[in-house]
Parts: sequence; structure tokens; C-alpha cells
Amino acid sequence: MKITQMTALDVRFPMPPGAGSDSLHVDPLYSFATCKLRTDDGLEGTGITFTLGRGNEVVTAAIRAFWPFVRGHDVAELAADLGARWRAWANESQLRWLGPHKGAIHLGLAAVTGAIVDLWARSEGKPLWRLLLDLSPEQLVALADFSTISDVIDEAGALELLRERRLPEAEIAAQLERGYPGYDTSVGWLGYSRDQLVTNALSSVGRGFRAVKLKVGSPDIATDADRVAAVREAVGPEILVMVDANQCWSVPRAIEAGRALASSDVFWFEEPVHPDDVLGYRDVATALAPMRIAGGEHVPNQVVFKNFIRAGAIQVAQPDVVRLGGLPEFLGVALMAAEAGIPVLPHAGETSQIHQHLILFTRCVLGLPELPLETIPHLAEHFVDPVQIVKGRYRPPTVPGIGAALQPDSLARHAATTEVLT
Amino acid sequence: MKITQMTALDVRFPMPPGAGSDSLHVDPLYSFATCKLRTDDGLEGTGITFTLGRGNEVVTAAIRAFWPFVRGHDVAELAADLGARWRAWANESQLRWLGPHKGAIHLGLAAVTGAIVDLWARSEGKPLWRLLLDLSPEQLVALADFSTISDVIDEAGALELLRERRLPEAEIAAQLERGYPGYDTSVGWLGYSRDQLVTNALSSVGRGFRAVKLKVGSPDIATDADRVAAVREAVGPEILVMVDANQCWSVPRAIEAGRALASSDVFWFEEPVHPDDVLGYRDVATALAPMRIAGGEHVPNQVVFKNFIRAGAIQVAQPDVVRLGGLPEFLGVALMAAEAGIPVLPHAGETSQIHQHLILFTRCVLGLPELPLETIPHLAEHFVDPVQIVKGRYRPPTVPGIGAALQPDSLARHAATTEVLT
Repeated sequence: MKITQMTALDVRFPMPPGAGSDSLHVDPLYSFATCKLRTDDGLEGTGITFTLGRGNEVVTAAIRAFWPFVRGHDVAELAADLGARWRAWANESQLRWLGPHKGAIHLGLAAVTGAIVDLWARSEGKPLWRLLLDLSPEQLVALADFSTISDVIDEAGALELLRERRLPEAEIAAQLERGYPGYDTSVGWLGYSRDQLVTNALSSVGRGFRAVKLKVGSPDIATDADRVAAVREAVGPEILVMVDANQCWSVPRAIEAGRALASSDVFWFEEPVHPDDVLGYRDVATALAPMRIAGGEHVPNQVVFKNFIRAGAIQVAQPDVVRLGGLPEFLGVALMAAEAGIPVLPHAGETSQIHQHLILFTRCVLGLPELPLETIPHLAEHFVDPVQIVKGRYRPPTVPGIGAALQPDSLARHAATTEVLT
Repeated sequence: MKITQMTALDVRFPMPPGAGSDSLHVDPLYSFATCKLRTDDGLEGTGITFTLGRGNEVVTAAIRAFWPFVRGHDVAELAADLGARWRAWANESQLRWLGPHKGAIHLGLAAVTGAIVDLWARSEGKPLWRLLLDLSPEQLVALADFSTISDVIDEAGALELLRERRLPEAEIAAQLERGYPGYDTSVGWLGYSRDQLVTNALSSVGRGFRAVKLKVGSPDIATDADRVAAVREAVGPEILVMVDANQCWSVPRAIEAGRALASSDVFWFEEPVHPDDVLGYRDVATALAPMRIAGGEHVPNQVVFKNFIRAGAIQVAQPDVVRLGGLPEFLGVALMAAEAGIPVLPHAGETSQIHQHLILFTRCVLGLPELPLETIPHLAEHFVDPVQIVKGRYRPPTVPGIGAALQPDSLARHAATTEVLT
């Protein structure tokens, strides 16, 4: 089963007014840089990474840059040795200069790796979560790259952790039966009015969700505090309320804002400052403790995550498998977080299609707590197998693969460019 | 003087065998993603960023992504407000998702910003270093973006520093008269034999250089220690000897290597571990003190530099204006380093064309010590005004601009793609 064709697509979807808006990203046009790989026996795998529109063509070019290193390889051979292969791609001697392990080249790697993992899961006839639950601790360890994180966790430590933390099979069965809790970020965009926030939050709770997240970063902190307090009052004390500043504040301003929001019993405070500011996050976390600080959606790789964890800078880790370079690096981050006792709740808005699989892995195999996973429904219609959320809980996907396959009709209508490489 | 045309070029140069090789970058093909901007009255400005070959097309695509934000703007207006304009480009609401402030999109911004600064300097008829020495402290402060570094240095602190540190005019004149000391990295590639290293180092000293740098990261540490010791013995105790691991080691291995190299009186130990590993660098620096740890060539932005400086992770800062997003961010890093008492010695191998200007700024305006600036001569023939090094010292450039203009003949022969946008 050899890979004989790559199709790189720059796909951009129209958005409803105000949707997706936050403090810094005021006019998003949800887009996927998409990698389709085809094998000589006709199997097709799809990987995606997410952007906000402009620049999606740069990431699509990065996808194409990996074609010479994937072309002609056998899917089973890649799957059997994916950790080492991934490390070689991530450190390709010329491409790594563009990062290393960050920016467009790493986003492109995420899409390519996703397509390969999709081929792997489809070739085994399993949804990704099932594939991962069926791997042995030794196979999982071989999937990760410990070369840059061995000062925090190494192969031996990871093996021990994987052997200890897996839930008993009966608990796994019960978890799959009841589904995994979600929360819907689309209720709380910054572009929505205070009244609309309250209406949306109540509607979300009415649909069975037990958590809501609100964007903050209004021109003045009092406005944010008022909006969050209004939602807290409306939903009552039992619902988790999270806030997300999307990187807009300086360290002193984030601390001031966190103090103003604390009376609304905020479950976590997400992306208070610039996503590279490890020690800034730590200062915010120290000043606002016991308020949990969450971050990771813009953390580019496991090395930066290691620094966040070592510094005590985050209390909730939000890795995104399509910003990290794909499954091997997500695994590295999840292992470090589990070792440190930090919950892993992926940034999964537009890619909950993939992360619904990974959360079942972190819950069932790493034994991490059952806290809610994000979803954003704006793109659901474009997927072949959209997420199924019933009464606020994700149903475990049943279709083989990672869940990123897009409707042919959506691709035909929304692909700005399509390039086929053979 | 309005900008009416952008030409984005993917330029890749052939290299001599073994040249440019280090522990991780084994087969570089030196390349520039190049941005040429033309105004309605025929002035042309050139900015470049550097890559190792493959992937240069991704960065060239990133350059093109900025065209809508530059097109039609007046050069004098941009120059008068460059700090704020740059901040807006770096945070463009859709493009920033590709970073923020890192990877291909930030490299692209560096090339575009370079072309604008080149237009500015040419329009004033000054080489960049002269332009910078002529700016008032207030103008320099307006050029930087303090929004993400204000917890370390703010506008007031920067103004005070600029007013205090500038060398007396007589000292500036003497500095310009004697030129600025350099060192030639091309003597010490990892692909060269031990004998060749010794021969090259002696030749370099014979040409007037007072410092040599050697790549390390051989399969075993003893080999590295032997190579470095051989050079130290050959050049004697008066010549500075630096080593550069180019990110290849884990933290424990870097500490072990540093100890093995210490007896050769290493002036600095460059890029011991992964360039994102702030706390890893700190661990290495703590274990090897008083050996100086140098880093920064792969540090993508001023926020990460702030973390390196705050953590005590580097004792020599090596910002690269074409990896940072351009002059405004280089200025932010230089101000933070000067405030912290850390020398600024840019990564300047293939872009010493530009950094020879910036080192005169950090020396004369920020009063930083006269330590040697890197150069690598492999691409000299391709520049319109190649650096002039006499007896190991850079002569101050006299031609207006930033020094990045490439020979038309070189562009004609080596541009893989040329795209003109109007």
C-alpha cells in the first residue's frame, strides 16, 4: 500500500457575521490547509490544519514541501515506525530552518502527519481513538519523540506511566457508553452583545452542556467583568464558566483582569498574555492562584510545552494536534502533562473532529479527569462524518480514520487552489 | 513616493562542498527569500531573509501575503510611523494565526520590513547605520513595540537608557575610523577535518581576525574536545575561541560536552540545546558557569528573548534581524539586552551585509562592548555592495540602504521563481 499521490488544497469557508471573533482575531475566515494522500490501492487519507483565511496558501505550500519525503512510502511501514519517521520529517535538514518546529512549516507537517495517521487507521478499519486504545504501552512510547523532553520524561518513565494510569476496562466501557462531555465555544464570541451571550449560554445549557466559555478582552475590564457576571448569574453556580483573552493583554493588565473576573467563579482563564511568554504566564498564575491558567492553542511544540509545565505557568494544558506537528508530538505533550498532574483539554474548536478521538485516549489510557472538551459547530456541514453531540456529550465516532475527511462538494465549492503531486 | 510594485524572488545559490554544514543542517543550500519594493518615482528597496534551500518557496509565499498591506503606501509616511505600522503587520488579524510572530510568516515580514527600511535609508541617502545614529532617542523609542515587553522595559526606561548609553561623539568617530571587529565562521564547519580546522584557523588569524568559531556536535564528545583543543593550541591564548552546537544536544549531554570543552578556554558556547528550551538553556548556563552561553539565531521574537533574558539563560544575545520580524523587533531585543547588561552579537553569517550596520548602532548608541561580529563569505559575490573586511575589521559601509541589494546577474541566474505584484 504505497503512497502515490498528494493533493494539497487551500480551502476557505464563508462564516456567519461576528462568528469566530475574539480580541485579536476580529474577522476570521475559517480555513483548512488540507492534505489528501492516496495509495496505489485507492485508499485515501485526509489531514488538515486550521487557519483564519489569509496565509492559508502559505501553509498549503508547506504541505507540498513534504511530498518528496512521503512519496512512494508504504503505509504499514510508516505506521510501524511513525515516531522515528516523524522526528526525521520535523528535523529535515533544510526545512527545519523555517522553524524549527513552529509556524507554517510545522502546521504543514501536522496536516501531512494527519493524512498518514488517517491512512493508518483506515487501513486497520478503526476510528483513531480505537486504534490508540489498542496500542500497547511499548507501541505508544515508540510513537513519541523523547529527544527534546527527556529531562522531564523519558521512554522508561512513559512506559511506567502508561502501565499505571490506564482505566480498568469496565470504566473504559462505561466512559464510551456515556460519551465525553463537551462545551460549545460558539456561544461566547466577543462580537456578541451581553444579552446575546446570556441567551446563548442558557440555550447551550438547555441543550445539555455543563460548561460555557466566554471571550474577554473588551476595551475596558469592567465591561468584561459585567458580561461574565451576567452569564454566571444566568446559568447558576453548577455550570463551569471559562474565560478566554486570546493573548490580548500585557502581564499587569491580565492580572488586573483576572482579579476583576474572580468573583464570577471562573473555572479557567485562557491565554491571558502572549503565547510565547512562559514567565509572563507564570507571573499571572502566581498572582491569580488558585484561579487556573489555561494555555496551549498557540504553543508550537513539545519543547515550549515542557517549559510551560516546568515553570508552573499553566494549570490546564490545551495542546492542538494540528498546531503541534501531529500525533507524535501531541502524545509527547500529553505524557508530560499526565506526569505533572495537569489536565489535557485540547484546543479543539474547529478541529473537534480529530480531538474527540484524542480526548478518549487521554481519558482512558492516561486516566486524565473527565473535564469538558471544546467544540465549535460552524464547519460541521463540511465534514463527511461530523461530530455527534447528544445532550452535551460527544458520541464516540464509529467511522474508521481520524475524522478530517471533507465533503467532496464542500471542497469543490470552497477550495481556492487544488494542486495534485505525483 | 508611493510603493507601486513588489517582486518576490526565491533565490538559491550553489555552495562549495561541506560549506555551511553543522550538526543538524548537514546539506545547506544558502538561499534568500527576497522582497524588492519599487516606488512610483523609481526607487527600489531590497529586503531578504535567509533559508537553507527547501522551503524557501514557503517563505516567498509569506512575503507575497503582506503585499495588500504595503501596496500604495508612501515611504515617508511609513518611515515616520514604522513602529506602529510594524506592530499592525505583525498582528494582522488573519496572518498572525500562522505564528504568531514566528516561522515562515515572520520571516516573510522580516524581508518586507527590510525592503521598507532600505527604501527609507535610500530616500535619505544614508547607509542604515548612519540613519540609526542620526535618530533621536524619541524616534528610536517610537520605532520599537513595547506592548509585549513592557514588564521588562517600557518607553520611559528605553528613553533613559538611550540618553545615558550613547558613546561620546569622539569615541564614535574613533570607532568608525578603526572599523568593527569580525570573526569568520566559515573556518570551522563540522564537515571539515581536524587538520583543515587548524589550517583554516591559522589562516584566519593571519588575515587579522582575533576570534574563531568552531562547530561541535560530532558523534562523540571526545572528538569535539580534541578538535577544539587542537585549534586552541594552534592559535594560542590571545585569540577568542567559540564553539557552536547548533541545537543538537539534550540538556544533560550539553552539560557534559561543555565540561569537556572548558579546558580549551571557550569564550562562548552557542546553541547548546533546542532553541525554544528557555529553562533548558538556564540549566546548562547554571551548570557550566562561568562559561558564557550564547543563543538567539533561532529565537523567533522579542517575547521569547525576554524569557531568555529574564531566566538568566543566555550571557550573549544573538538576535538575527531577518529571523525576528525586522528592525523594530531587533531594536526591542537590543534594548532589553542592553538594560540587562548582556552583549548583543547578532547571528550574522549570511546576513552580515545588514548586521554590520546594526552592530555599529548597538556599539555606538547603546554603548555595548566591542566584541566580534560574525561573517560568512560564501555569498559575497552576489551582493551589489559586499562587506569590506580589512585586517579582520568591518569597514563602515558608505552606500545608502541596508546592504541587501543583490547583483542583477545573480538574481537572473539563481532565482528559482520571480513573481511581480502590482
